[in-house]
Amino acid sequence: MLTKKWSLSPNRCFAPEPVQRRLAHQFFETISALPLVCPHGHVDPALLANPTARFGSPTELFIIPDHYIFRMLYSRGISLQALGIPTSDGSPVETDHRKIWQIFAEHFYLFRGTPSGLWLKDELINVFGVDEPLNARNAGYIYDYLEKQLALPAFSPRALFKRFNIEVLCTTDAASDTLENHQSLHQEGFTQIKPTFRPDAVVNLDTPSWRENLTKLESTVGREINTYAIFIQILEERRAFFKKMGATATDQSAATPYTTRLSAQEAETIFARALTNKLNPGDAERFTGHMFVEMARMSVEDGLVMQMHCGIMRNHNPDIFERFGSDKGADIPLKIEWTENLRPLLNAYGNNSHFHLILFGLDESTYSRELAPLAGHYPAVLLGPPWWFHDSVNGMERYFNMVMETAGLYNTAGFNDDTRAFVSIPARHAVWRRVACNWIAGLVMRGLVEEEEGYEMAQALAYDLAKAAYKL
Amino acid sequence: MLTKKWSLSPNRCFAPEPVQRRLAHQFFETISALPLVCPHGHVDPALLANPTARFGSPTELFIIPDHYIFRMLYSRGISLQALGIPTSDGSPVETDHRKIWQIFAEHFYLFRGTPSGLWLKDELINVFGVDEPLNARNAGYIYDYLEKQLALPAFSPRALFKRFNIEVLCTTDAASDTLENHQSLHQEGFTQIKPTFRPDAVVNLDTPSWRENLTKLESTVGREINTYAIFIQILEERRAFFKKMGATATDQSAATPYTTRLSAQEAETIFARALTNKLNPGDAERFTGHMFVEMARMSVEDGLVMQMHCGIMRNHNPDIFERFGSDKGADIPLKIEWTENLRPLLNAYGNNSHFHLILFGLDESTYSRELAPLAGHYPAVLLGPPWWFHDSVNGMERYFNMVMETAGLYNTAGFNDDTRAFVSIPARHAVWRRVACNWIAGLVMRGLVEEEEGYEMAQALAYDLAKAAYKL
Amino acid sequence: MLTKKWSLSPNRCFAPEPVQRRLAHQFFETISALPLVCPHGHVDPALLANPTARFGSPTELFIIPDHYIFRMLYSRGISLQALGIPTSDGSPVETDHRKIWQIFAEHFYLFRGTPSGLWLKDELINVFGVDEPLNARNAGYIYDYLEKQLALPAFSPRALFKRFNIEVLCTTDAASDTLENHQSLHQEGFTQIKPTFRPDAVVNLDTPSWRENLTKLESTVGREINTYAIFIQILEERRAFFKKMGATATDQSAATPYTTRLSAQEAETIFARALTNKLNPGDAERFTGHMFVEMARMSVEDGLVMQMHCGIMRNHNPDIFERFGSDKGADIPLKIEWTENLRPLLNAYGNNSHFHLILFGLDESTYSRELAPLAGHYPAVLLGPPWWFHDSVNGMERYFNMVMETAGLYNTAGFNDDTRAFVSIPARHAVWRRVACNWIAGLVMRGLVEEEEGYEMAQALAYDLAKAAYKL
Repeated sequence: MLTKKWSLSPNRCFAPEPVQRRLAHQFFETISALPLVCPHGHVDPALLANPTARFGSPTELFIIPDHYIFRMLYSRGISLQALGIPTSDGSPVETDHRKIWQIFAEHFYLFRGTPSGLWLKDELINVFGVDEPLNARNAGYIYDYLEKQLALPAFSPRALFKRFNIEVLCTTDAASDTLENHQSLHQEGFTQIKPTFRPDAVVNLDTPSWRENLTKLESTVGREINTYAIFIQILEERRAFFKKMGATATDQSAATPYTTRLSAQEAETIFARALTNKLNPGDAERFTGHMFVEMARMSVEDGLVMQMHCGIMRNHNPDIFERFGSDKGADIPLKIEWTENLRPLLNAYGNNSHFHLILFGLDESTYSRELAPLAGHYPAVLLGPPWWFHDSVNGMERYFNMVMETAGLYNTAGFNDDTRAFVSIPARHAVWRRVACNWIAGLVMRGLVEEEEGYEMAQALAYDLAKAAYKL
Repeated sequence: MLTKKWSLSPNRCFAPEPVQRRLAHQFFETISALPLVCPHGHVDPALLANPTARFGSPTELFIIPDHYIFRMLYSRGISLQALGIPTSDGSPVETDHRKIWQIFAEHFYLFRGTPSGLWLKDELINVFGVDEPLNARNAGYIYDYLEKQLALPAFSPRALFKRFNIEVLCTTDAASDTLENHQSLHQEGFTQIKPTFRPDAVVNLDTPSWRENLTKLESTVGREINTYAIFIQILEERRAFFKKMGATATDQSAATPYTTRLSAQEAETIFARALTNKLNPGDAERFTGHMFVEMARMSVEDGLVMQMHCGIMRNHNPDIFERFGSDKGADIPLKIEWTENLRPLLNAYGNNSHFHLILFGLDESTYSRELAPLAGHYPAVLLGPPWWFHDSVNGMERYFNMVMETAGLYNTAGFNDDTRAFVSIPARHAVWRRVACNWIAGLVMRGLVEEEEGYEMAQALAYDLAKAAYKL
Repeated sequence: MLTKKWSLSPNRCFAPEPVQRRLAHQFFETISALPLVCPHGHVDPALLANPTARFGSPTELFIIPDHYIFRMLYSRGISLQALGIPTSDGSPVETDHRKIWQIFAEHFYLFRGTPSGLWLKDELINVFGVDEPLNARNAGYIYDYLEKQLALPAFSPRALFKRFNIEVLCTTDAASDTLENHQSLHQEGFTQIKPTFRPDAVVNLDTPSWRENLTKLESTVGREINTYAIFIQILEERRAFFKKMGATATDQSAATPYTTRLSAQEAETIFARALTNKLNPGDAERFTGHMFVEMARMSVEDGLVMQMHCGIMRNHNPDIFERFGSDKGADIPLKIEWTENLRPLLNAYGNNSHFHLILFGLDESTYSRELAPLAGHYPAVLLGPPWWFHDSVNGMERYFNMVMETAGLYNTAGFNDDTRAFVSIPARHAVWRRVACNWIAGLVMRGLVEEEEGYEMAQALAYDLAKAAYKL
């Protein structure tokens, strides 16, 4: 079988015009070897805490845990069972990983022009040395090849962590988490892995398993949480513990960025209704809005950076949710409003330049209308990079185009990969760095910034801004 | 009078950069001769059913029936009467078609940079062989020339249908339509013309002439429709009849894509109130929302593809509506929401990959936020091409930019021209094919897809996707 | 100290592709020397009425009055006090203008890629002849240089007005304004300065100082305004006075473009409640919506062009508002809706092509969805240029991209600089003219318009459209 040699274009993500492309290369050369700063993501710390951990089969690495991948296959009529996605009730699914890989290979064309397609290609070529385009015919051959690679020590998570040149990697961890993996990593001296405090499971009262989550937190701290006042005190203590374990940031997510300040009395009353499972309509939303303001207050006090990820309807498809659970590619964005919703929080803490509030949304119509003007005024506000669906070549270009003129580059927070797919991290940073350098090259070509300035901007986007924004 | 020879640039719609342009040409060469697939439009089937039909005068072909054209002239202060648009009450309007044509020619510059301008130029040059730019001085000369051409058999609708290389053309037809033109075409063996079932006139209870429309349907089927149950039964029968006549799809339009499932009882009650002209506020909207779900159910049962066109306020200008009726260029888009509104329908039928639900909207902010994520998850959902105002060079580029990375190319439905202007069909498809090839060339130039993949993507966008989406 | 010579790229704002760039230059050459038409802005007429007026120190010219500049510094943690912004209560702020300038120079990099950065560079180089990039080291030197220049008669407002080749400059003036500066200018024969009637302060009943504003208007006209009927009569008289003083236009601003027609009775009742400080919730919004319609009626009667600027939340940051007042960089845009909101006004007056209604908004998602379709239908509607945050290279490109195909070029109102920063006027017009020529060059390159047409379009965008839209 004669196959074309597979390779990544050295010009990828760069504009076609030759002079701009050359300039983009020049900028990229100065920053491509910088270490990776990963201030927000979902890598499981156990992968790194255990020196003998391995990724499993190619299917376990690339398909089963990655909703970016299987949602696309699902959208074209392939069942999640056929892809080996575990069911909630344990009913059987495909267990033949080679067979799943074959389906994946046959449908690899579906990823044309998608960020997943770009990352996969980069991972297969750059991380694993695959040199043929994956297709139905070579699927088995490539599966065998990858399986052998993955068994080698050089492809252990720890070996790749080193090879990827990751300077710092922040995980995302529940308020109740004991951070044992982080503790053992720190005892080893592996301090580049840091936790992030994510209290959604106990703060968003409408989380389906809220009561269980609270019980888990009670068990972690060894105290009963039967009042709002104790709840707040425990959260403050957990933040202090996370900070001691290296955390520099928190993270919260909600459908909308609605914020409000409840009286202590009202907060106490709603919390009591939650404990007795008697929430009134609107209670959960008001409480989440209040907790955004409370978490901002705590950040002002303890210095942890605050992140808000807003505008997604989780589990849009109840059939998938019931059979397979959350994070199965069925989360769909919502239009949101920041200007009015953030006002209570910003009026309280937005003028404090030591407080860093990093905003993420999926409603791009708010980039130029609301987010950039807010970041361009409030000392506390920084804009996170394009999130989720928009972590893509076009998504980044739209972001640069719509955000930078108004917010100013230095009110943005650089890049973060926000991924649980550890092996995709270098590919994701490479896309950002390339698109950024190409954007800067475009500014220079159009006489909007000087070439000298471009080098500083490239360094900022690739490295400096993320470190400064996250106090790393 | 010395005039510049008028011609279409061979590079039209292609990016300026020479290598990308060459690549776009390469892709375009492989697909430009493919037959035209026209799965959704508003051509009158009588034009083709009658072998001796002609288009009439140049003014009757290009101006009087085309609201894209006369709305632009109207917006610059030219009255619809002066353009020969018929009034509802029969009060007189300009009847001198040469005079109307002269006004059009004098204002031809208004179409600079608009899709109408691009189509008109293509039609005049490619269909009719006009070789001078239309202007005030040559208006009469060109009118005479076109008038002669239009009288020739070579310019009959049937002759042009053949010349245009149309493989299939779907019309849009009311639920009450007897499809006599389609029947006679089929009897002739002319099966490339297919009807589409469009029940809006009887399904949207707030249609001004709803009662008359229902009466018409009663008269078509020869039965009284005095209950909701009978109404549903009749719709199912009409769908079966349309399907027998070649239909593969239905189409519905509403201001919003709100969907809901009413109980049979509630549906019956609202329908009864409609029959007695005693609708309560909200009844019509709820009933339309329910009928979206009902039509989806029927599609699951009979296999007809379902189309939704949402987000337009019809007849924004009551003065124009009263004097000239509907479809007079006074329909203005509305912002809409898909994520929450479509949930009831998708939860019921979205996981069925044999059900094709093709979505069209005019609120481009929903492309990347809602539509692409929905199409990239639900097996049933496909995205229609840019609709109406956005069926344009920039509109298509925004669509490719904002949709494809998240939805994936293979969750889109190719192109449809959606036009009643039969003679503009090849020009419209040419714009789509050119913009598509240029988009693919851009991806190749930026190293995002391989050149080999590009040929397959071009073929898909020009031909395959539309056939597959519409089950043609 | 060796420094690089500072210069503006002759290619600025032009696309990198060499043929398109050459074409953009060709178009630009034919229009770059055209006089500047400034139909909407906020220059203080006193600057020009007084022949001996000067701009003050460099800090007084560039920093203290310009919220575009100090908001960016504030967003990075520099206090407004440190920048010499006057406080409402007169509490002390930095008065050492050299020290403020030093801070500005040290943070000049914050303006990279922003329109402010582009304008500043153009002003420093083209207006003042600065030939080194401003930075921390040369800040003092450049301050001294500018200070000397600013003291010269050649840098008086009047001298610059002439040098800038401004054909007409419209100011924005309160309903109560006696227009004494305009009167004295007219008496001198300086008729290029025209007032614009801006009645917001008395028309928007929820303006904090509404009662004082009304009192001021009463004092200007020497009559008590104790009924709505008198209020309307006074507004009509003021419009007549403004018109006599050269005004061709009015301007109104509100959070939303909601319009409605109140009965005379209802308008009278709400006005009476305002006079007794007993407004009901919703009164102010309804009254503002009614006054939009009333102002449209008056425009139909007296021929003044009507402008609406909608979609901004003023004073988002109450802390800044209390300490420093309005217009301190803390105004944040809101999403808005035009299609339904403008309907009452347009149904009443939109079909009148002698009435010019120029619309401005900050919600770009409405460009292609609502604004362009409205302008492409209603004879009265014209679209203003990109406003405020969107008066930028990318903002203009998005505007051309999203507006022109649907609205048509000739339903737009050219450019206006909307600035109180007099010295920035040529830089702002240069950006518009350059981006416009580059846009046209792109259309020609892509075969969408002919080169000959491009010259006419460039002339229209640079000069003709603004004069026609504003009846200048």
